[in-house]
Formats: sequence, structure tokens, C-alpha cells
Amino acid sequence: MDFEEFLSNFRLGETVLVEYSAYSRPELLFYDIVTYSKLPIVVDDLMDSLYEYYIRLKLAGINVEKLDSIKVIKTGGSKNVGNVIGKLELGKYVMNIGEYAKIMDKAGEPPFTNPVLGIHKLIFLGNILENMKLLKMISDYIGNESRVAFYFLNRDAIEKFSPAVSAMMEEIATSVIVLEGKTMVVKKAINEDLVGEKVPLLKP
Amino acid sequence: MDFEEFLSNFRLGETVLVEYSAYSRPELLFYDIVTYSKLPIVVDDLMDSLYEYYIRLKLAGINVEKLDSIKVIKTGGSKNVGNVIGKLELGKYVMNIGEYAKIMDKAGEPPFTNPVLGIHKLIFLGNILENMKLLKMISDYIGNESRVAFYFLNRDAIEKFSPAVSAMMEEIATSVIVLEGKTMVVKKAINEDLVGEKVPLLKP
Amino acid sequence: MDFEEFLSNFRLGETVLVEYSAYSRPELLFYDIVTYSKLPIVVDDLMDSLYEYYIRLKLAGINVEKLDSIKVIKTGGSKNVGNVIGKLELGKYVMNIGEYAKIMDKAGEPPFTNPVLGIHKLIFLGNILENMKLLKMISDYIGNESRVAFYFLNRDAIEKFSPAVSAMMEEIATSVIVLEGKTMVVKKAINEDLVGEKVPLLKP
Amino acid sequence: MDFEEFLSNFRLGETVLVEYSAYSRPELLFYDIVTYSKLPIVVDDLMDSLYEYYIRLKLAGINVEKLDSIKVIKTGGSKNVGNVIGKLELGKYVMNIGEYAKIMDKAGEPPFTNPVLGIHKLIFLGNILENMKLLKMISDYIGNESRVAFYFLNRDAIEKFSPAVSAMMEEIATSVIVLEGKTMVVKKAINEDLVGEKVPLLKP
Amino acid sequence: MDFEEFLSNFRLGETVLVEYSAYSRPELLFYDIVTYSKLPIVVDDLMDSLYEYYIRLKLAGINVEKLDSIKVIKTGGSKNVGNVIGKLELGKYVMNIGEYAKIMDKAGEPPFTNPVLGIHKLIFLGNILENMKLLKMISDYIGNESRVAFYFLNRDAIEKFSPAVSAMMEEIATSVIVLEGKTMVVKKAINEDLVGEKVPLLKP
Amino acid sequence: MDFEEFLSNFRLGETVLVEYSAYSRPELLFYDIVTYSKLPIVVDDLMDSLYEYYIRLKLAGINVEKLDSIKVIKTGGSKNVGNVIGKLELGKYVMNIGEYAKIMDKAGEPPFTNPVLGIHKLIFLGNILENMKLLKMISDYIGNESRVAFYFLNRDAIEKFSPAVSAMMEEIATSVIVLEGKTMVVKKAINEDLVGEKVPLLKP
Repeated sequence: MDFEEFLSNFRLGETVLVEYSAYSRPELLFYDIVTYSKLPIVVDDLMDSLYEYYIRLKLAGINVEKLDSIKVIKTGGSKNVGNVIGKLELGKYVMNIGEYAKIMDKAGEPPFTNPVLGIHKLIFLGNILENMKLLKMISDYIGNESRVAFYFLNRDAIEKFSPAVSAMMEEIATSVIVLEGKTMVVKKAINEDLVGEKVPLLKP
Repeated sequence: MDFEEFLSNFRLGETVLVEYSAYSRPELLFYDIVTYSKLPIVVDDLMDSLYEYYIRLKLAGINVEKLDSIKVIKTGGSKNVGNVIGKLELGKYVMNIGEYAKIMDKAGEPPFTNPVLGIHKLIFLGNILENMKLLKMISDYIGNESRVAFYFLNRDAIEKFSPAVSAMMEEIATSVIVLEGKTMVVKKAINEDLVGEKVPLLKP
Repeated sequence: MDFEEFLSNFRLGETVLVEYSAYSRPELLFYDIVTYSKLPIVVDDLMDSLYEYYIRLKLAGINVEKLDSIKVIKTGGSKNVGNVIGKLELGKYVMNIGEYAKIMDKAGEPPFTNPVLGIHKLIFLGNILENMKLLKMISDYIGNESRVAFYFLNRDAIEKFSPAVSAMMEEIATSVIVLEGKTMVVKKAINEDLVGEKVPLLKP
Repeated sequence: MDFEEFLSNFRLGETVLVEYSAYSRPELLFYDIVTYSKLPIVVDDLMDSLYEYYIRLKLAGINVEKLDSIKVIKTGGSKNVGNVIGKLELGKYVMNIGEYAKIMDKAGEPPFTNPVLGIHKLIFLGNILENMKLLKMISDYIGNESRVAFYFLNRDAIEKFSPAVSAMMEEIATSVIVLEGKTMVVKKAINEDLVGEKVPLLKP
Repeated sequence: MDFEEFLSNFRLGETVLVEYSAYSRPELLFYDIVTYSKLPIVVDDLMDSLYEYYIRLKLAGINVEKLDSIKVIKTGGSKNVGNVIGKLELGKYVMNIGEYAKIMDKAGEPPFTNPVLGIHKLIFLGNILENMKLLKMISDYIGNESRVAFYFLNRDAIEKFSPAVSAMMEEIATSVIVLEGKTMVVKKAINEDLVGEKVPLLKP
Repeated sequence: MDFEEFLSNFRLGETVLVEYSAYSRPELLFYDIVTYSKLPIVVDDLMDSLYEYYIRLKLAGINVEKLDSIKVIKTGGSKNVGNVIGKLELGKYVMNIGEYAKIMDKAGEPPFTNPVLGIHKLIFLGNILENMKLLKMISDYIGNESRVAFYFLNRDAIEKFSPAVSAMMEEIATSVIVLEGKTMVVKKAINEDLVGEKVPLLKP
């Protein structure tokens, strides 16, 4: 299966969990999604993670111009990349869904493809109670047909830090992809035929 | 063994523990139970877990209309799915059995099939003492012939968080099913011939 | 070796540790002991464990009438099963041996077969110091020829919770049996020829 | 190598560590040592461990009469076995070596074979600092040619509880024996030819 | 691939993570980098790590003269090696980037090769929150084309101490090299053809 | 390679880490070093470790006379062995290098062979911050050509207690030897040809 066909499998309302290994390069997958998405992109950038991706892509000699115009909602952090349409303070992310929705309104006509970068950083900062609230908030967006979300998660970091939160995220996601080296493996999917499928990353 | 035959094996009064892996889709099993149960359904919905199941089913293109009319007792949470016949506050679940019984009275003529969703969320919030009270409460309902209960438990989350509570739940359950991918394996059963049996999920 | 022959191997004064796996059904072994014991039965029921066993047996279609008349000493809990000849408060179990002895006097002419159910629940509630007192109390009864005791212990729960307490219980017991599925394996015995012996549970 | 030859290998001043598995029966080795020792016996009985051994031996049908007259120094505990020549309070064991020496004087003409039972119970009660003091005290007796000491240690309990203390005890001991089932294996010895040697327990 | 060719693969702005095993000799790789770098060297010396490297190299009979003139920015520590162009106090490293930049200005015309020694010592001293700030600071320098940075990290120390921090560093690095004995293995690289490549250290 | 040739490989200024397994006999290696060293010996005796070695050697029938005259600097402890040229209080070891140097002056004309016994006992007593100071102090002596130091470390104790400190010690040492039974294996060395070399202990 090629990447475009792969991407076309995810439905509006889905929350796709991207578990990448610590040695892999999730920015390439992010770039592929931005490139091949049929929907406009709105990025959730937690604590400057988009900047990290952006710089690594640029260093790799990839043309990052298209990232300069993507819509971005920042939560925490200070390094702007793309067209930042709104900012949330860190403490409010978990709680203030209304504020988030107001920013989303500025993004234009839904639906969107919505990559969420750096979610594990929030998890590191929270205790089990706070992380369950975070999980609930993620969960509340599932089924919201204004978007297909891709949550990027450093699996090696989170599994050791909190295996319970890791397992809960896998449960609430509608699809789970594991990224190891240059290959994605589908671990969970609404379309059962996809499970076990291996999809190579595209060279940008 | 097919699913209906499988379901028919459980007796009134049983507490069946459904241990699903983090990558599996417990909502499919839940849907199958609702579909093929010979008894009316009353769902225990802890902390909006039913909503999570509902949304994932809907996203998967499954007709969720039948869920709109099932009877639901909510504990914690705010997202109503189905016919909510009563609500309990979170702190009271463990303690106030009288209140729970009053709500159950509104459910109509027993016996029922009683799926319980999200029990691990309660476990995350409790210490060992509180979890032992929770276990006792679960245990007190065993043998109550007004229902067959199915407790859905994210095994990967709970085994790492509290292996002792996990082992205790397996003990007090009268049957234990492990759901891995599209297949259930019977790990414990009143009918010894069932142990080791593999049963495929039905495609809704 | 069949069950009756197996049971006949244990001597007055022995403390037999029954380590059952979380997926096994210790109530069947308990029932077999009650059925085939040549001695009258006195059960130590910690925190309503006997009720749990009773209900699971009943649900399995086993005739539990004989349990209705067995003598029971309850410690903690509120669900009476059998002929309760005395009750101890939980805090006093470890300390107040005199009170326990007084109740035992009401049980009639020794010797007895003395199943002890739910000991791991006490261990969960104690710190290492309290658990060493508990171990000492168990130990003090060893050699008391008024009984053969069978301590039922959920091995999967206790080994993860406190491997040191688990290893100490194995040491002070005069015999250790591991119950896995429908088979018991003798791990430790006064009669060395028994070690390694596998004995099937009887179907009640 | 038979047991007597084995025992004759240990020299005055040695501290032999006996690491027994939780399923083994250290009381048999203790009994063999008492029986075949060429030297008079003085037992260090920590927290009634000798009573535990005594009862298990008696239950196994072994003639325990010879234990009734052995000299015993009790530390903690209340169940006297043998000829108790002195008692130490628990808190003082680690500190008050003078008091211990005074009691030892009553034991008669050295040298002695000195089994020490229940040392892991002290370790459970101490923090790392207290356990290092305990290790130092054990260490200070090494080379004391008035005795050959045998420290009995439940390996499965101590290795999980404090692997560092376990490794330190193995270091300071002059010999280490592992008891598994009915066989001892020499893991460390002054006489290098003994290392790896397997010696069967004698049937009392 | 030989060492020079290997070194030429890293681009301006990269942050290369060097994970060395506890038994390996990272100072040899450091020396090779200093020797074969086409760019001038500026060393970040955390808590006297450069001194440790210097001494081990000297002891190994290697001519360390060239180290006497390399430019060094010290953070913490008191043992000067090379040409120390500025010092930062430990507490300020994470926070005071302005001060660091001022010192960097004295280093001359960029770009530089920038080995960073002893980063795990900072990690040991911080909690998860402080370490996330440290990671952010490291991350902020990625893409800074005034340098190619090589972060030297004792993998065996950090993986046990904080696997989450270890996995996060692997993520933010643009390249990861594992040093085991005399061989480096490329685990992550901008140039995918490099991944899996093995490069021998040069004998200085 | 025989022992003398082996010993001749270490250079002035080296810090050799001797990691012995809990079942091995490090005192034999210590004795071999004392016997075959071409340099005069100064022992660092932490918390009476030399006494432990001395007694175990004596018990093994080894002539310990030569130890009676070796120069010893004691830190903590009260059991003098050899010619004690100075004592340090425990709290001061890490801090008061000046005091240590003054004592060293009394040892005569350098260079020396400097076995350091019992370093893991200090590590047990310290937190991570104190242990990093200890590591720094060890590190500061590396390259000091007045001595070749041999740090004896109970590997089984320290690896479980603090794997990070263990890995850091392996890093700062210029050579690492693992002692298992009667054989040493070189794990790290300045002379790369030595790595992997196995050297048998000499029978004293």
C-alpha cells in the first residue's frame, strides 16, 4: 500500500495515534501527512514541538516552505512556526475547551487534518489524575467530524514513564500506527484489513 | 464455537471479566453482546466510557441506533448515550449501594445483561485500600441472579498499574475472557470445557 | 495419586499453603477438602472470602448445602455463610489470640481441618512490620495438633505486591501446593516423595 | 562427597552463609548440622525462628529430643526451645556486643558450631543504614575462632527485598551454600575445589 | 566508511547524540573529532568532564598538546583544560542563554564543531521538570548553523536513571551514534543511507 | 597472560576498577596485587574493609604476615590492620582532600600501588548528589602519577542499588576488570589489546 492510499483510509472524526520509536524520524511522517493530505492542515503545537520538527526537516535539506503557511494553534512554548492562529497557555489546555474552540473557528471551513505534536510533554508534567483529565479531553474530540487527528507520541519515552497512560491512549485512539525506522505498521484500525499492514514513509 | 453459543454459556449471577489488550477494539465485543443478548441490557457507564465506545463504533460505520435506546446507569462523566435511567456521583459508587439499587429498580423486570465499562478508571483513582473496597463491591454482586455482568478492563493499563488488583479481579470473576485482536480466548470458566476455547468476534 | 490419598498425607499440626493462580478456581479445591476431609471442618473466613467461594460454587451448579452447616470463624466482613461460631474484628486478628482461642473452643472436639480463606487481603492492608506480625501469628499455630490448616493464597496477587512476604509464607508452611488450572502440584512436603507430584482436582 | 566430609571442610572462624530457596526445608540442614557437628552447638535464635524449625521437624516425625538440650541465645521472640542460656532484646542485638559476649561465656568451653536462624527478619526491619551496621556486626565475628557460624537466609525473600544486602552478605561470608530441594551446592569456599560441589541432605 | 568521511556527513546545525557504553572510551572519539574536524572546535565542558577526558587520553600515551589550545566554555567545575573563553555557573546554564551567547561571541568566527561533554551529570541533578527545560534548551540550539554539536552521553547511566529523558534526547537529536568498544554504529541520521553503518574509531 | 605481566600493564596515574561478583573472593586478588606489585603499597581502607579481607585470607590458611606492615589510610571503621599511617572521619573523606594529602605525605616516596577497599559502602550511604561528589573526588585522582589505584567494587550489590553510579564509575576508570570465580576478564583498558583478556588469579 502506498502512502496516499494509506492516508485515505482514515475517516473524519478519527483520532490516529502515531507511536514512534526514539530512533525514528516522526517529522518525516508529519511532512508526508502535510504534503498528501486532501484536507487543509491545522497543527496543534504543544511546547514548541513543531519548531523541533521544522528545524530537523530543514536540516535534512527538505523544502520547508509549505510549513510556513500552515495554520497552527500553539499551547505553551514561544517559537512560532507557520501561521499561528491562536495561543493557549499551558495550564488551560486541559481545561479551557471553549477557548480552544474559539481559536479553531479562525481556522476556516472544516474539516481539517489535525496533527498534534508533543503530547508526551504534557504527560510528563502531569500526575495520574491530571493525565486522566488529559485523556478525557483527547477522548472528547474523537468523533468530531471537523477533523482527522494524528497524535504523535514518543513511545519509548512514554511506555517507561507511564505504561498505564500509554495503554489508555492506545485504547481511546481509533487507529494506532507504530513508526520504526522508515516503516509504519498498523496496529489498530477501524478497517480490520489494515491491521498488520506495513507502509513505507515517502522520501520528501 | 460461534458467538451466540458462546454467550449462552454464561449464567445468571455470573461476573465475566473481559480483559482486552490496548490495541484491541472492545467496543466490537460490547456491540456483539448488546446485539446477541437474549436478555435486556443495562449498561454501567463509568466516567463516559460508553460515549467512547459509541463514538468509535459510529466512526467505524456501524449502525449505532440500537445503542440510543439501551438503558444506562452513569457514574461520573457528563456525556449521555442511550436511555440514562440514573446517575451516581463518583465518590458514591463504591459506597452507596442503596442508591444504585434504587436506580436499578427503574430498569424494569430483571434479569439483565449488564456490561460495565471503564472500571480501570476507578482503579487508577484509588489507593490499595479504596481498590479493595471496590473489589468487595464487585464481589458482592456476584451471584446476584438479576444479571450477567461483563466487566471490561484494559489489561495492559491495569497490569502495569496494579498487578495485585488485576489478579484479584481475575480471582473474583466467575469467568475471564482475554480479547486480543479479533479473537477472544476463555481463560477461566465455570464450565471447564470452555477453558482455552477461542471465539472470533462477529463483524457488526 | 487421587485426591483422598493426597489429602491423607497431611498430618495434624501442619500448615499447608495453597498458592492458586489468578485464573484458577480455588473454590473447587476448597469444596473437595470439605467433602473428603476425615476431620470436621472449621473455616477461617477473612473479609467475606467464604461468601465469594460459596457464590462461585453455587453459580457453577454445585450443591452447596453442605457448606450451610460448616463451622466458620469470621474476621472482618459481613456476609455470613455456614454456621458462624464467632466473629473477630479485623484489627484484632493479628493481636488477640486469646479471643480467637475462645471462639475455637466452641467448635467442639478437635482435631479439625481448618481452611483459611483470604489471607492475602490482610497482607494488602499491612506494611512490612504488620505483615511480619501476621506471619508470626500464622507460624505460632504450626504444630498445633488440633488442626490441619490450609491457607489459600492468590499467588499472582501476592508475588507482585510483596515477594518477600510470599517467600516467607512458603518457608513457614510445612507443605506448599500450587494450583494451576485443574491440577495441583506439590512444591514442598514433609514427605519428600510427594514433591513434584501432580494431583487433579475432583469434579464436585 | 557425603555430609560429614562436607561439614569437616569448614574451619574455626568461618561464617558460612546458607541460602535456602523458599520451597526448601532448611530445618533439615539445621538438624543435620546439629547431628553431625563434632563441636558443641550454640544456636542464635532470632525472633523465634528456632521454634519454627523445631515444630516443622517434629511434624515431619523426626526425633527432636536432641534439640531440647542444645544451648540457645534468643534475640527477640518468646517461644523457648532448647536450653536458653540468655536473651537479648531486639534493639540491642546490633549494638550491644558486650552483652552478647557475656551470654556466650555461659555456653562453656569454645569452640562451637553456631547456627544463626532468622537473620532475614532483622533485615526486613532495618533500613539500609541499620542493615549495614548489622552486616558490620556479622563481619566482626568472622575469624573469631571460638565458632563456625552458619547463617540461614531465605534467599527468595531477601533478594527481592534488598539485593544489595544479599550481595554484601555473600561477600563477607567465607563460604556460601545454596540449598535447593534436597541438595546443597557450594557457591563459594575457602577451599576452591569445593566450589560447584553438590552435597545431598541426609535423611534424619 | 572511514572516520573522516563519516564526520563529513554531519551538517551545520545538527545535534549529534553520542551514546557510549560504560565500558567504552568516549575520549577517543572526542579526540578523533578534534583531530579530523574541518571546523574550529569549541567544547562545552560540563562539570569538569573535559578534564576527565584529557587525563584518560594523556594516561593512554596520546599526545594531548592540541587540547591545550582548544576553546572551552566551562559550566560548573574547577579544573581548566584548554583555552577557557568563559565560565557559566551551574544554575544558570539552563536559564541564561544570553550569557552563553556572549561567551560564544568570543570564540571567533563561526561555524564550529561543538562537543558537549558530561550532559548526563546535569540530568542526574534535575527532576523531570528541570530535565524537560534542559531538553528544551538543547532543542533550541538545533538548527543553529553556527555549529555542529556532539552531545556525549553515558547511555548505561542514563537509561536506568531516566529512560524517558533518554528517549527524548534521542528524538530531538538529528543523528544518534552508539559507541560500543572500538566501533560506532549509526542509529539515526538525516541521510538514511547512514543508518546501520559501522565506523571504527581511529587509533590516535 | 600471567598475573605479573597483567599487573605490569597498568600505568602510573591509572584508576583500575575491580568489579567482583558477590560469590567471588576479591581478597585473593588484593593479596596477589600486594605480593606482585613492583611499587610499595598504600591501602585505602574504607569502613574496616581491610579487616574483612585480612580475616578471610587468614582463615583460608594464607600467610598474612606481609599485610601486618603495609601502609594503610583508614576512613571510618575501628579495626586496624597493617601500619595505619592516618585516619579520616567518614564525613570528611569526600570533602577534605587536604587532610588526605597530608596523610599521604607520611607514606614515603611515591609512586605507590593503591588498593581502595569498600567503596560501595560509601555509595550505599549517599544520595545521588553525594555520590556524584564522591565520583568527582575519585575522578580528580585519576592521572595522579604518584599511584596506580585499584578500586574494589561489589558489582552485584552496586548494580542493583544504583546502576547509574555503577555506569559512571566504569566510565571514569581507565581500566575495568571483572572478577568471576578464579578468573579476571578485562572489560576496558588503555591498551586495547588487553580487552577481552582472561587472567587467572594466582594461588597464594
